[in-house]
Amino acid sequence: MKSVAYGVQNATSPVAPMSIDRREPGHHDVLIDILYCGICHSDIHQARNEWGGSSLYPMVPGHEIVGRVSQIGSHATKFKVGQLVGVGCMVDSCRHCEACHDGVEQYCDDSVFTYNAKDPKHGGLTFGGYAERITVDENYVVNVPENLDTKAVAPLLCAGITLYSPLKHWNVQPGQKVGIIGLGGLGHMGVKLAAAMGAKVVMITTSASKAVDAERLGASEVLISKNADDMAKHAASFDLIIDTVPVAHDLNPYIALLKRDKTLVLVGPLDPLEMHGANLITKRRHVAGSMIGGIAETQEMLDFCGKHNIVSDVEMIDAQYINDAYERMLKSDVKYRFVVDIASLKQ
Amino acid sequence: MKSVAYGVQNATSPVAPMSIDRREPGHHDVLIDILYCGICHSDIHQARNEWGGSSLYPMVPGHEIVGRVSQIGSHATKFKVGQLVGVGCMVDSCRHCEACHDGVEQYCDDSVFTYNAKDPKHGGLTFGGYAERITVDENYVVNVPENLDTKAVAPLLCAGITLYSPLKHWNVQPGQKVGIIGLGGLGHMGVKLAAAMGAKVVMITTSASKAVDAERLGASEVLISKNADDMAKHAASFDLIIDTVPVAHDLNPYIALLKRDKTLVLVGPLDPLEMHGANLITKRRHVAGSMIGGIAETQEMLDFCGKHNIVSDVEMIDAQYINDAYERMLKSDVKYRFVVDIASLKQ
Repeated sequence: MKSVAYGVQNATSPVAPMSIDRREPGHHDVLIDILYCGICHSDIHQARNEWGGSSLYPMVPGHEIVGRVSQIGSHATKFKVGQLVGVGCMVDSCRHCEACHDGVEQYCDDSVFTYNAKDPKHGGLTFGGYAERITVDENYVVNVPENLDTKAVAPLLCAGITLYSPLKHWNVQPGQKVGIIGLGGLGHMGVKLAAAMGAKVVMITTSASKAVDAERLGASEVLISKNADDMAKHAASFDLIIDTVPVAHDLNPYIALLKRDKTLVLVGPLDPLEMHGANLITKRRHVAGSMIGGIAETQEMLDFCGKHNIVSDVEMIDAQYINDAYERMLKSDVKYRFVVDIASLKQ
Repeated sequence: MKSVAYGVQNATSPVAPMSIDRREPGHHDVLIDILYCGICHSDIHQARNEWGGSSLYPMVPGHEIVGRVSQIGSHATKFKVGQLVGVGCMVDSCRHCEACHDGVEQYCDDSVFTYNAKDPKHGGLTFGGYAERITVDENYVVNVPENLDTKAVAPLLCAGITLYSPLKHWNVQPGQKVGIIGLGGLGHMGVKLAAAMGAKVVMITTSASKAVDAERLGASEVLISKNADDMAKHAASFDLIIDTVPVAHDLNPYIALLKRDKTLVLVGPLDPLEMHGANLITKRRHVAGSMIGGIAETQEMLDFCGKHNIVSDVEMIDAQYINDAYERMLKSDVKYRFVVDIASLKQ
């Protein structure tokens, strides 16, 4: 069915209105009327073809999707019409590999991303959430708690799960000291989630100006990474550190903050990183990466957020403002996530 | 008691005969007549003050020590006179921190290295194994199985435990695919130990000339890291990789060999390393470090080697040849560990 969307025609064109086709719901599909879609920094990278020429056009970005089920397939049983649901970064995966079997579909080599991917079952390209509706296999849709501020739920589908998954995988316990490096879309979710898990959260940032906000979000303390004396005071004291900084940087000062056998988890950095082996060897420390989360874990995260009343801090925008939002995101000028009000698409 | 030793007076002097004083055994000490001492690459670094000015002189290197107990303290109960024993990289630690409590004394902030350290209990400096005898607290001495070739046991005390500890800590199981990067003193022990644990061992090296030797030592396969096609065939297939290469290098090609959730363990590299975050993030891979092993684990390693008849491949030398041996080690011209016959000290 023809649907209004916002997207790009190529790597240099602005985000503009376009018409896309959504499939009629198949046996196991649900059709979702989208209410809100968050803007992730990776939307910009992909729209502008900044990931090694991997972009496919035309492209409708958006993988932080919240909406209501408007139609269900004949064999779909998980959701009812009218139910509030979410879709994150994946709309399918192979369903038979070890990763799928283990419930970590995000690591399936054949997972199908919500946009900027070839759709192996239905042909054509997948289109994301800057659109009035989307058809998705029910197994890749999650339930959204009704008690949360719906528009601020959208970023949980990517930013939220990207931080929740490593906090759970590395088994954060009440009282543990957890560091979050970088206070942006990812980092602000990390502070909220780790604090709700009972951890003592330390916001690690280059910018003293972020202290007030970090404490409001749940940080017990703010550690300014440029201050070598303060960094030395925290040496070998952290149980887990999550690094959300998206640009190249030196990991050594952060690794030195970890206790023996503990881990620095990269969720932001894609660029080359510098690291001294001695810093890991002398305390059997780890550096690891983590990417979003599986479907069951995304549901678990939303239920956790429902219970603890956690949502993202958002700035609501109309679709017509997306290009300006992209420019502001490149200057880190957003607290902390733009969310598109999809009702604006039809203006 | 006055003892003959070989050591250096400063960072540029050759290894030469010197006289040192060993303490009379205290209540919990044993006096050991040293038979053999292996030469570790770190002996050269420390003798030549290559680790950031941390060297203390005069210095008697050597932390791969095998000998026989010649005297025991009044309250020492672990060993008998005449027993074959070993001493590795540590001769004491604080005994009350979390690392000591957990049996990983190598990560104790106050562990006392066998040489090139201040001795907090007895004053002065610790002196290592290029010497006719050594006095050591019995809790930092291990039993050496009599069935092994004694002179080839010495390198197990550092090179052996440095590889055994990560293979055990990361829980290598029969049938798992384990990579060992670099075929030197450390790497050749890694191949032997991992093979004895039942792993399928792949020697990863830049040098095709090492294939025959690697297979003799127990490798199932040799992977030439310069061959991009071969590296691609092994992508995402390893359960554990141990990197023994001591110089700066790019970790990315090796990280790409790991399965999801698996670890590349650094035991050699102390220099800056390059790494792309994406390589870790896309499969939740880890890079970690590991340093020697604890005392109980060193005993476990020696018992394992006794059971599986594992020793180091050694070239025996007299003490007078140590300077030449150092020069040859800098050219990687040894298969795979020099061991000093301590009987030669009195020539």
